[in-house]
Amino acid sequence: MVIVMRQDATGEQVAHLVEKLKEKGLTAHISRGTERTIVGAIGDERVLQAVPLQAFPGVEQVMQILQPFRLVSREFRKDDSIVNVGGVKIGGGHFALIAGPCSVENWETLIETANAVKAAGANLLRGGAFKPRTSPYAFQGLGEEGLKLLAQARQETGLPVVTEVMNTSQVDLVAKYADMLQIGARNMQNFDLLKAVGDVRKPVLLKRGMASHVKEWLMSAEYILSRGNYDVVLCERGIRTFETYTRNTLDLAGMAAARELSHLPVVVDPSHATGKRSLIPPMSYAAMAGGADGLTIEVHPRPEEAFSDGDQSLLPKDFSELCQELKRFAEVCRKTW
Amino acid sequence: MVIVMRQDATGEQVAHLVEKLKEKGLTAHISRGTERTIVGAIGDERVLQAVPLQAFPGVEQVMQILQPFRLVSREFRKDDSIVNVGGVKIGGGHFALIAGPCSVENWETLIETANAVKAAGANLLRGGAFKPRTSPYAFQGLGEEGLKLLAQARQETGLPVVTEVMNTSQVDLVAKYADMLQIGARNMQNFDLLKAVGDVRKPVLLKRGMASHVKEWLMSAEYILSRGNYDVVLCERGIRTFETYTRNTLDLAGMAAARELSHLPVVVDPSHATGKRSLIPPMSYAAMAGGADGLTIEVHPRPEEAFSDGDQSLLPKDFSELCQELKRFAEVCRKTW
Amino acid sequence: MVIVMRQDATGEQVAHLVEKLKEKGLTAHISRGTERTIVGAIGDERVLQAVPLQAFPGVEQVMQILQPFRLVSREFRKDDSIVNVGGVKIGGGHFALIAGPCSVENWETLIETANAVKAAGANLLRGGAFKPRTSPYAFQGLGEEGLKLLAQARQETGLPVVTEVMNTSQVDLVAKYADMLQIGARNMQNFDLLKAVGDVRKPVLLKRGMASHVKEWLMSAEYILSRGNYDVVLCERGIRTFETYTRNTLDLAGMAAARELSHLPVVVDPSHATGKRSLIPPMSYAAMAGGADGLTIEVHPRPEEAFSDGDQSLLPKDFSELCQELKRFAEVCRKTW
Amino acid sequence: MVIVMRQDATGEQVAHLVEKLKEKGLTAHISRGTERTIVGAIGDERVLQAVPLQAFPGVEQVMQILQPFRLVSREFRKDDSIVNVGGVKIGGGHFALIAGPCSVENWETLIETANAVKAAGANLLRGGAFKPRTSPYAFQGLGEEGLKLLAQARQETGLPVVTEVMNTSQVDLVAKYADMLQIGARNMQNFDLLKAVGDVRKPVLLKRGMASHVKEWLMSAEYILSRGNYDVVLCERGIRTFETYTRNTLDLAGMAAARELSHLPVVVDPSHATGKRSLIPPMSYAAMAGGADGLTIEVHPRPEEAFSDGDQSLLPKDFSELCQELKRFAEVCRKTW
Repeated sequence: MVIVMRQDATGEQVAHLVEKLKEKGLTAHISRGTERTIVGAIGDERVLQAVPLQAFPGVEQVMQILQPFRLVSREFRKDDSIVNVGGVKIGGGHFALIAGPCSVENWETLIETANAVKAAGANLLRGGAFKPRTSPYAFQGLGEEGLKLLAQARQETGLPVVTEVMNTSQVDLVAKYADMLQIGARNMQNFDLLKAVGDVRKPVLLKRGMASHVKEWLMSAEYILSRGNYDVVLCERGIRTFETYTRNTLDLAGMAAARELSHLPVVVDPSHATGKRSLIPPMSYAAMAGGADGLTIEVHPRPEEAFSDGDQSLLPKDFSELCQELKRFAEVCRKTW
Repeated sequence: MVIVMRQDATGEQVAHLVEKLKEKGLTAHISRGTERTIVGAIGDERVLQAVPLQAFPGVEQVMQILQPFRLVSREFRKDDSIVNVGGVKIGGGHFALIAGPCSVENWETLIETANAVKAAGANLLRGGAFKPRTSPYAFQGLGEEGLKLLAQARQETGLPVVTEVMNTSQVDLVAKYADMLQIGARNMQNFDLLKAVGDVRKPVLLKRGMASHVKEWLMSAEYILSRGNYDVVLCERGIRTFETYTRNTLDLAGMAAARELSHLPVVVDPSHATGKRSLIPPMSYAAMAGGADGLTIEVHPRPEEAFSDGDQSLLPKDFSELCQELKRFAEVCRKTW
Repeated sequence: MVIVMRQDATGEQVAHLVEKLKEKGLTAHISRGTERTIVGAIGDERVLQAVPLQAFPGVEQVMQILQPFRLVSREFRKDDSIVNVGGVKIGGGHFALIAGPCSVENWETLIETANAVKAAGANLLRGGAFKPRTSPYAFQGLGEEGLKLLAQARQETGLPVVTEVMNTSQVDLVAKYADMLQIGARNMQNFDLLKAVGDVRKPVLLKRGMASHVKEWLMSAEYILSRGNYDVVLCERGIRTFETYTRNTLDLAGMAAARELSHLPVVVDPSHATGKRSLIPPMSYAAMAGGADGLTIEVHPRPEEAFSDGDQSLLPKDFSELCQELKRFAEVCRKTW
Repeated sequence: MVIVMRQDATGEQVAHLVEKLKEKGLTAHISRGTERTIVGAIGDERVLQAVPLQAFPGVEQVMQILQPFRLVSREFRKDDSIVNVGGVKIGGGHFALIAGPCSVENWETLIETANAVKAAGANLLRGGAFKPRTSPYAFQGLGEEGLKLLAQARQETGLPVVTEVMNTSQVDLVAKYADMLQIGARNMQNFDLLKAVGDVRKPVLLKRGMASHVKEWLMSAEYILSRGNYDVVLCERGIRTFETYTRNTLDLAGMAAARELSHLPVVVDPSHATGKRSLIPPMSYAAMAGGADGLTIEVHPRPEEAFSDGDQSLLPKDFSELCQELKRFAEVCRKTW
């Protein structure tokens, strides 16, 4: 931690700060410059996070030196983590191709989609049973009935199942049926939910919040790892910016940054990121070329009848073409699935 | 709803769309332009929200005409709503001055702060017992113990109590002690939580999410009203933008827009919005002059010892000066408290 | 300047950096922490701005301690600057009420508007002769003819004239007719234009760029002052964010921050910031209450015939009511005009 | 154009609007809905852009149906445009690899860099002679001397030269030496400059403004094409968002959107977009895989001595490795150079 004192800070104010740092077991290192005095706090600055140094008299600015996260960092673990989801590996060159409908609507549509995405090359099945919807009047998901259908689809196709959990009270229920628990973008900082999935022994797919810095996203992952669950896969799904042509702004450099700062695998969701069917293929290739460890893509056999997100769902045949192209890229990108 | 067809849309695609609209009980009104055909859907377009019209073949763009919310809108109720929180009125000229520490830390600090803010002119007491923190290693709040201290402070000072609820499982507990339940910015789209506080008969303070459009904020309020709880106060607390000098960007025009679109009262949180002590007074005056129905401000007697947000907390004497100034503004602003 | 070395930085890399700092006449101050070595550079760090310290081997992060601007800063000049525009003072309690049409269209409309805004209480006349338009097919302004009309309106009404200059080649021409040169938001970092108006002895109204940090805005003002022109008034006109309900997001805390960091007067443009007629009055009161040194507002007698920005122009009678209210606020806000 | 009337709009207000539309030569098409009346304007709505329909009494909302640009659109020209820069083709599968130092500093460094990037595989040389700098105290470029050095480097290496023009008064000078004129992000809406380069017969590289919508970027290109210069290449260089880990947020979906909406080639600048050396290679591969028509990358033999942007410049050997990888991707991406 580096603390910059105000130009008019008094000697007493500096002394007061130094004393406080010593109390916390840190060493203070004072540099008197021509215009400002700066104080370096030597030691583990994480103990300082609870101290509002900015509130000390005479303090102008506090600069953090270390990352606030530990377990998720590359410094903690140099090699790529590989997360095993129902037998499918993600990370370290293993590519996840997660596909399926936005919502689980009924058995016929689900199994038709699941069979199609499997045939095309997907290795994981997605589908929402609990749906976060901006309108209280919109379809809210089938709930446990949807989870049962997903489990049944897994049995028929062999594809492990990824589905969203929205609430601490649903965690056990969803964990009973699913192979991977998804935390949605709107819940990335629902800290009680993060703790709850941290206490379960199921892999977690953690979506980035739409206004979250890469480092906050990693801090949310830290919540999960700090409870003992190390099987976390991050998912970049676009951030909210001024641009409205796309539904969100896909931040592929943020994806690459997360892979650099952390050992956890990172997948990309081009469906929500762009919200435009025509942009999903190019952004899928870009994600793989940029190093992503997987993709999650919405597919629906009859988008115009979809209960949600029909306008960004690919048709099975489009998804199949996308997979053909991805296979062309895989070798150059050193990915397998 | 206005549906714009692609330039190359066929007659069959238009007919298919029209048929679908009729199925839903709407009337279709076709305008053939020189470059595009557009279809107007006459009737209650809210029934159309579940139909992914964008996914229909030949459709280029779908434009919504009506607001997606109903109960919270000014069209539903012309006059300002007045929300009663433990005897204190908010809205319709009644100004809420909510003050207190970020977190409840212990009895001594709490009651010292509560007495100070009451003496200065606050009419509601705030303080967090459950704290959303970006780091799992940071202070997480006193929990029920904190709620008890708040209730005790209410008894001593007579100030009704506002405190945050983070999780559906805490709603009953918090409602037992508090006069008003706060939904934090990070939970603005925690839909299960919105439903849960919609089922309780306690006023709700709904903070705007940091990446939420005004209309999404109103949709979240609609979740609460649609469950029968009409006592909702909105709180503008800054949105996340590219500017980093302030912690967030206070969107006072968003506050004014919410008051125009909705009958619900809207208060402003200059502490979180700016994160800078020196900017809290000018933004408080600006908020009142711009029409806000109240303010929520963090106050701490010893910010450098605060467990959270010490760097943006006002000292009691600064808060007292702020209140003196606010009283000067009140008459011009036609507000009383 | 504080330089944080990477965890794996070698002793040679630190020595290399220290040598470079000495070459530049600075003193290096080394603190060896448990996880990182940090180097403080003592001396005027502005000489370091041209050195890409981030590019040095072993460097992880470079933190700036001082503000990059000097002449515009409060440290350079403690008191509020007062800028005199054709006899009208702005700053230090003197409030500027700048009003007029978006574009100068013809003599009749201009003089009708000028008389109306003067009668209502405006003390400066605005109007564009050169117009920055996003479309090449839109009205581009009357050019010199418009400047002549503005000068004539000044003669009739006595109101000094503010008008935009878009290009270095227009500076002399505009300076010949106008009392104050406006630099538009899109040109805030047109550095040649900043230099050109810095070389003229006419006051400048510098609008904030729509994606500019407060500090970058001040740096652009520094360009002008560094050429010897100290008569600069800043103008906050909204920044671009994800919110689309308003045309831009009015950043009143940014306005207050600029007044805190700099001695220059700051005015607010609620017309462009909100783009919505109904929001202009509340944001005008908010701006004044938050400390702004003036307002610039678009007024047009027949908005539906305006050549540009008709949808955000106030009618003269609405502007007159706004002025009545502003007069009620003026005393409380300690502003006069 | 679709005009939505307010709920309380009168019949006269509708009639007044319809009359105005007819005056402009458009046909009005009225749909009376249950809650709103909407008016469709049939005809070329571009003539309506100058009419502030939003300002008409009774109007609630105006929705544009057509794109505001014409010459740059895919509807105007279906096939990819191919722009020839001094013999090097860009677009339609021809990939531009533009590399060189941020600024031209002196002959030795320039020619060393130029030879290195040519050997690595670059087919165009970049370098700034006129530099836009946020600080008036920073290096502002060598001016014409820099242009001469660039021309000399072209003669030695055979690489055509791309360099920035900041001001209308420099256009002829820069055009005399350079093969392609670059318009920087800060000048994307410097409309006089756009007109000036539109009048020259040299290809233009138009960078996207950091707060510009894709459609505004295309409108700026329209300015150039509308003057008769069709040789425009677009350049995505990152937009400004709340994320600060990267210097900007690279918007690859925006790049893909521009290629979909327009026939013009689009290149990507990962150096400015990320500002981080380690992220340049993955984002280069991602850009190519996502369909980009080229890259522009900063290279410097001794970044720590660079006059500008040293911290994001690649070393020649890093650039050479990047080129090797790009060659691996080229075939899969169907690009040649």
